Amino acid sequence: MSNEHIVKQYDADLENIRTRVLQMGGLVEQQIIKAMEGLAEGDLQLIEQTIDNDQQVNRLEVELDEACTHIIARRQPTAVDLRMVMMVIKTITDLERVGDEAKKIAKMAKSIHGADLSLMPHIELRHMVDTTIDMLRKALDAFARLDLTATAQVVRQDMEVDAEFKAIMRQLITFMMEDPRTITRSLDLLFIAKSIERIGDHAKNISEYVIYMAKGRDVRHIGLEAIEREVAG
Amino acid sequence: MSNEHIVKQYDADLENIRTRVLQMGGLVEQQIIKAMEGLAEGDLQLIEQTIDNDQQVNRLEVELDEACTHIIARRQPTAVDLRMVMMVIKTITDLERVGDEAKKIAKMAKSIHGADLSLMPHIELRHMVDTTIDMLRKALDAFARLDLTATAQVVRQDMEVDAEFKAIMRQLITFMMEDPRTITRSLDLLFIAKSIERIGDHAKNISEYVIYMAKGRDVRHIGLEAIEREVAG
Repeated sequence: MSNEHIVKQYDADLENIRTRVLQMGGLVEQQIIKAMEGLAEGDLQLIEQTIDNDQQVNRLEVELDEACTHIIARRQPTAVDLRMVMMVIKTITDLERVGDEAKKIAKMAKSIHGADLSLMPHIELRHMVDTTIDMLRKALDAFARLDLTATAQVVRQDMEVDAEFKAIMRQLITFMMEDPRTITRSLDLLFIAKSIERIGDHAKNISEYVIYMAKGRDVRHIGLEAIEREVAG
Repeated sequence: MSNEHIVKQYDADLENIRTRVLQMGGLVEQQIIKAMEGLAEGDLQLIEQTIDNDQQVNRLEVELDEACTHIIARRQPTAVDLRMVMMVIKTITDLERVGDEAKKIAKMAKSIHGADLSLMPHIELRHMVDTTIDMLRKALDAFARLDLTATAQVVRQDMEVDAEFKAIMRQLITFMMEDPRTITRSLDLLFIAKSIERIGDHAKNISEYVIYMAKGRDVRHIGLEAIEREVAG
């Protein structure tokens, strides 16, 4: 093989991995939407489908892990390419766990299905879900384009989601205190809200890997202001 | 440099990484113990110390990530050595998150500190904590010796911890229903129990990476029986 051919094949391998990460991201996003829709509509078929689909997410993680190991062993990437592969290895772990949270929401929706809805507190989760999906899209978009514009914003949104989770918890405590018969269903909703909050954490993690990849500087654990300086600089 | 010298240096680098992963494991184990002791004794100094120490855990993660990137770029490991490095990259992510859970427990202990303990449900968390610490030790021991003997047991223990978490949740629901004034403190304990349960998940993840490293087969998502066959075979 000519050198040129090897380089082309290498670029194609990297591009293929990147594309599959985005596919995986699209799949877990769909999983969140389906789980929440199954919960809202009480659609048992959709719920079961979401639970089953988690296997596809898991399979993508295993395949992408193998593809990364393979490319390191065969192509011995260095510098920015190696950082890209490292970023992929970490990103897919987070995406797989987003998939786990979607599955947990679907399982909770299944256990709620058929329950007495008069004892179900009315809690608005839509805004929180929309925000985390927006975060996930921005993080994966930043990954795809290596564009840091939105990454600091994702970190900021994560703080909003954390605050929203705490507000929902306070609302649920009020429901439970006023009518202890709502306790079981309130806890179900609390765990669903917790899963959504964790999806936000994973989107934040992915944003931080993208900053690491682009800047070569690990920005986990340094705080929002330092991240904003890093992204701007 | 002679080839022999390079090989020795390479082995020393790998050994150094392994040693630091075990140090990180020892540190997060101490963090769990301190957080739980701080909670049980209401020892505010210990609680604050645990919260502060999380930075050490984070620093170790960043350093080890860099050491792994460095060894891949410089030494271009293949086969079993590459799998070892991949295992380390994943293990330290889980250890860092164990550290996060210990920090969350300490923060919860801080918010409980000084609260009216007459409204605090009596819930026994010790057995669950002991089990997860035992799981973490076994997982890291398997990592250090590349000995799969205990790995399937860790996966089994994780199922026990999940069941114990559910039992604790049922107990807490009973407390809350009988006396709604206990709701706030019960939720604090529920989140602490959830953190402990998640520590068990991370120990299970590490065990599965060790099996992958030793067997070259990814055993995540295949179920306990298949794992037992894999470890025995």
